Amino acid sequence: MILVLEQNVGIEQISELISRLEAMGLKAVMSRGTGRTNLAVIRGVDKTTRPELFTHLPLVEEVIPFRHKFKLTSRDFQQEKTIIEMDGVNIGDGSLVVMAGPCAIESRQQILEIAEKVAAEGASVLRGGAFKPRTSPYDFQGLGEEGLKYMREAAKLHGLLSISEVMTPEDVPLVSSYVDILQIGARNMQNFALLRAAGECKKPVLLKRGLSATYLEFILAAEYTVSCGNPNVILCERGIRTFDTYTRNTLDLTAVPVLQEMTHLPIIVDPSHGTGLRHLVPPMSKAAMAVGADGIIVEVHTDPDAAVSDAQQTICPMTFATMMKDLRALGSVTGMPMREAR
Amino acid sequence: MILVLEQNVGIEQISELISRLEAMGLKAVMSRGTGRTNLAVIRGVDKTTRPELFTHLPLVEEVIPFRHKFKLTSRDFQQEKTIIEMDGVNIGDGSLVVMAGPCAIESRQQILEIAEKVAAEGASVLRGGAFKPRTSPYDFQGLGEEGLKYMREAAKLHGLLSISEVMTPEDVPLVSSYVDILQIGARNMQNFALLRAAGECKKPVLLKRGLSATYLEFILAAEYTVSCGNPNVILCERGIRTFDTYTRNTLDLTAVPVLQEMTHLPIIVDPSHGTGLRHLVPPMSKAAMAVGADGIIVEVHTDPDAAVSDAQQTICPMTFATMMKDLRALGSVTGMPMREAR
Amino acid sequence: MILVLEQNVGIEQISELISRLEAMGLKAVMSRGTGRTNLAVIRGVDKTTRPELFTHLPLVEEVIPFRHKFKLTSRDFQQEKTIIEMDGVNIGDGSLVVMAGPCAIESRQQILEIAEKVAAEGASVLRGGAFKPRTSPYDFQGLGEEGLKYMREAAKLHGLLSISEVMTPEDVPLVSSYVDILQIGARNMQNFALLRAAGECKKPVLLKRGLSATYLEFILAAEYTVSCGNPNVILCERGIRTFDTYTRNTLDLTAVPVLQEMTHLPIIVDPSHGTGLRHLVPPMSKAAMAVGADGIIVEVHTDPDAAVSDAQQTICPMTFATMMKDLRALGSVTGMPMREAR
Amino acid sequence: MILVLEQNVGIEQISELISRLEAMGLKAVMSRGTGRTNLAVIRGVDKTTRPELFTHLPLVEEVIPFRHKFKLTSRDFQQEKTIIEMDGVNIGDGSLVVMAGPCAIESRQQILEIAEKVAAEGASVLRGGAFKPRTSPYDFQGLGEEGLKYMREAAKLHGLLSISEVMTPEDVPLVSSYVDILQIGARNMQNFALLRAAGECKKPVLLKRGLSATYLEFILAAEYTVSCGNPNVILCERGIRTFDTYTRNTLDLTAVPVLQEMTHLPIIVDPSHGTGLRHLVPPMSKAAMAVGADGIIVEVHTDPDAAVSDAQQTICPMTFATMMKDLRALGSVTGMPMREAR
Repeated sequence: MILVLEQNVGIEQISELISRLEAMGLKAVMSRGTGRTNLAVIRGVDKTTRPELFTHLPLVEEVIPFRHKFKLTSRDFQQEKTIIEMDGVNIGDGSLVVMAGPCAIESRQQILEIAEKVAAEGASVLRGGAFKPRTSPYDFQGLGEEGLKYMREAAKLHGLLSISEVMTPEDVPLVSSYVDILQIGARNMQNFALLRAAGECKKPVLLKRGLSATYLEFILAAEYTVSCGNPNVILCERGIRTFDTYTRNTLDLTAVPVLQEMTHLPIIVDPSHGTGLRHLVPPMSKAAMAVGADGIIVEVHTDPDAAVSDAQQTICPMTFATMMKDLRALGSVTGMPMREAR
Repeated sequence: MILVLEQNVGIEQISELISRLEAMGLKAVMSRGTGRTNLAVIRGVDKTTRPELFTHLPLVEEVIPFRHKFKLTSRDFQQEKTIIEMDGVNIGDGSLVVMAGPCAIESRQQILEIAEKVAAEGASVLRGGAFKPRTSPYDFQGLGEEGLKYMREAAKLHGLLSISEVMTPEDVPLVSSYVDILQIGARNMQNFALLRAAGECKKPVLLKRGLSATYLEFILAAEYTVSCGNPNVILCERGIRTFDTYTRNTLDLTAVPVLQEMTHLPIIVDPSHGTGLRHLVPPMSKAAMAVGADGIIVEVHTDPDAAVSDAQQTICPMTFATMMKDLRALGSVTGMPMREAR
Repeated sequence: MILVLEQNVGIEQISELISRLEAMGLKAVMSRGTGRTNLAVIRGVDKTTRPELFTHLPLVEEVIPFRHKFKLTSRDFQQEKTIIEMDGVNIGDGSLVVMAGPCAIESRQQILEIAEKVAAEGASVLRGGAFKPRTSPYDFQGLGEEGLKYMREAAKLHGLLSISEVMTPEDVPLVSSYVDILQIGARNMQNFALLRAAGECKKPVLLKRGLSATYLEFILAAEYTVSCGNPNVILCERGIRTFDTYTRNTLDLTAVPVLQEMTHLPIIVDPSHGTGLRHLVPPMSKAAMAVGADGIIVEVHTDPDAAVSDAQQTICPMTFATMMKDLRALGSVTGMPMREAR
Repeated sequence: MILVLEQNVGIEQISELISRLEAMGLKAVMSRGTGRTNLAVIRGVDKTTRPELFTHLPLVEEVIPFRHKFKLTSRDFQQEKTIIEMDGVNIGDGSLVVMAGPCAIESRQQILEIAEKVAAEGASVLRGGAFKPRTSPYDFQGLGEEGLKYMREAAKLHGLLSISEVMTPEDVPLVSSYVDILQIGARNMQNFALLRAAGECKKPVLLKRGLSATYLEFILAAEYTVSCGNPNVILCERGIRTFDTYTRNTLDLTAVPVLQEMTHLPIIVDPSHGTGLRHLVPPMSKAAMAVGADGIIVEVHTDPDAAVSDAQQTICPMTFATMMKDLRALGSVTGMPMREAR
């Protein structure tokens, strides 16, 4: 149920109403838009609950049932797009945010060099894996905490925010102590314990779409995190698994307008995993911008062929620089500003 | 085998060489690029054929085996992009060609009205089905020849070229007597008799990708038509079938750069069938342009909800007009000119 | 609309009723089951037609709207399973019919040898392609009519029926003059002109499921043929295209019980194309029988590795013999008789 | 690397060799087959390691590189099938083991009743979820430990073993203290921390195939668990996600012979999730047996329509009883014994 409140209601009155609902055994979450305040009742109601239960409550102007299984992440509940503000970088505000860096953090030297390169071209966020989810137990599993330390140093030095993957609930505190954004990988999109742990964390969470996840499943995964108290979830389209194997995955750019219509969460695109082939990263990044994505996340390495993982889909700094120029020109037409190159 | 000829060889000498190859029981096709002339030997050779068989022939500078199963459609054979020139409309020359019109031709009045609207906004080609491939035998199967007559009239009146689908080899002469471009639909992508019949026709052919066709299968389908003598094939990405059913198909925009790399044929995008939902047509058209497509083909109807087929994915003239303006602005940055609105 | 007629109505009265319906501009098709006669009105009605239009007609006891888009092929119209009787071989009568032979007819000698082998083990139908649908225009396209002649000879000599693929409407008369069953391949499942041509032919038609066809699309394809006058269509599950590429296709055995519930047409399974790997043919054939298929169609060659096409999925006569013994034992439990070995 | 040891070598000598390898910084795991003992060196070697490094070691007769990325789970390393022996129930010994029970444990009464019914028909293992992975955070999440208590009581009372899902590494000790087999669900197939935690547990683990997992990814997931010290992994085919949505998933029975060829681990089939429709459970169970599965796991409820989850795919005790009789008859031909009904 969405309780649409009267206009110009003070925060104290709303708190009182929330307490009253809690006393009824319910849980309510508030959304304060520019003109409107909505309360979503997300626990203690089901299909059999009658709206009349709420219409007589003070402040409540209208009671609207949820149209979808997802609630807090829906546009019904919150019409305005979520803008995630982090230290000068806003995700979801109409600009194109660029996250770039190596697949895996390999050494202090490596991450420092790459951070310098991507910062110079206008990236805002440094990416790099320290805990790597690998298909085989015998593949390189990442540098762990050591890698996170290197990354933090590199990000700070070059004025970047940072993002890295977290694979288990227990690692959430550790990883979030080093990075600005937690990444939950495609394989863990329905690792519900992890989604909940990320919901109890204060850092923004980038959630990658599972290889065969429908839009509904994807949003419901985000709903796990948001309903646990963390509203700052960024969705990431990174390609789905189809019959075609020429590319590593099939990048589903239609996901961008569809998800923007269904949910208020920002949506970014990963053309590196989405295609698996480095020469396809620039054209698909341009397409991602044209279709209205809030950002892109790309794999960049100073020596792509020597990368310990994902070598085939990693671009070099020179390609990255050219691509950033093209995107900046495109953004001037589509009305999507980007951070300046330095 | 590709026979790379010496530079500055006259057409008569080449004809002589081709005759000589024919006398050896082979079939050779010529490609004259800006600097180079290549001959592709496409019949009478196989994996066991030794290149030395050709190296001693006059004019032959180099003999290169084909890397792929497709030959005449490959970039190995013809490096320059194919430009299809038709009465003032060039497909493949770096501009964005727009084909627009109803799913099915429903009446003279209908196609005349729609032609006027799309022409006014800068479309170059009028689309409309007269022979409709329908999943059920009980659905509307199209107006047939009558529809083609209406279409020809409408196209002429508004200075448009026309495209319509052909479903059987027998219908190729009839349909090609009315329209400028023959369309072969997704369900017929591997209707080899039809592909061959289109190869014996002189009109350009737009070939739609099958619902579950790999890139290789798609190009090999085009190879059927090209190897039968018709070099003017336009590839059309129109969405593939995946697990996701929110959209009718999954539009695979990565196909554009991939196919442009593998083949010299022009590639256009169909966002109407690719998504199946009208509000997704404008954003995906923009993405198609950003990724470098040579054109788009969209379903437009003056009263979309009343369209006898594909109503859900058909846009109205007003949406079309707005989209065309956005594309024109985008094209000014990406360097893709479009026909002016009138 | 299904018109359920009163019991014990004579054929003359029914003919009169059908004529009367035709005079109303409708087309009606009859199904005479053991106890019941139904008429399906398949042309001239749509969703807006009111059942009352028919309730007052003589003989009509009840009027039932079709639940599905498919009509003549539905269990609603004909409850009893279709049994196709051909010269001692019944398909759909509860037995397991085995069709076997090479992918392509390569020579008179080849087809004679293989026919002898498969007949000896209890196959009923000889399979073999004379017109081959090939992904590449440069691959072997079949022996054509010459191949059909060899096949007819081989089938006759060894007391087998025969089946071969037809690829175009024009070839239907030719192919049906040589073989007992026409095959329409997976790539042509929605070649509607071909489906109609097969509907005007008197020979049974085996229709293969398209690579990405849903059950509904598959049945509607059969409906094209049946609604054109040929009730003897055999459905064939031959694997669908999925993300997994270890096998050539993913054999969807669930199709068997699902299709048997939706339609009264017989359903057979092709484990050769369904898996693409010869060692998987025997286990998947057993599974096909256990799940209730009306038959199997398998590729057998006296020298599989030397087969001009589909070598990897073709079994040798010895494997075929062992498999047939296992199936016969299984059939004794599942209650599915098979033709005796000789 | 596989080190094939000389025949008739004592366990002490082997231990010594393993210690010696460990001193070299390697990790070796032993497989003692009927005639042969193999050591797999799984850590400290890579593609660049030369076999000669091992050929001079005592006891080593032959050194064979692994052909696949998976090692301990491969037939190369262990030729004999793994038989998991648990208190009178052997999985992988050629019999068909039946696991049955509700989707979710709903109450003490419910699980007691169902346990009685399935035990009476010859099931060996009671299934039931206490920790439920649900797509939506607002759906019933299971009874937790309370449910496990009920299940243990019901299983004991009726002489059944038990299986239940574990969703996080932290829950492994708790769940394994109540049940005989730990289940890892499809969504967690690549939850690597969970796979490792299960590897450190002593109880057998049933690993379900992910919705879009290839065979290789599936086996590598099992390799995580086995390489952490738990050799008793049971693979479970439970349907993959394809374009077809008539059934919940597409049951891929070909997985059974393919996986049996690639790995020595037992493989069971879940026709309930594999089809999502209850009337398809019996035919697909028969097919699973015919194709050689080591067992099946089915959802049974005394009142299927009232089940809190998966109602549509759950069968009633009567259907279960009929199915068990049919399977028993089939097993008598295929040579797969089953536990007697009581």
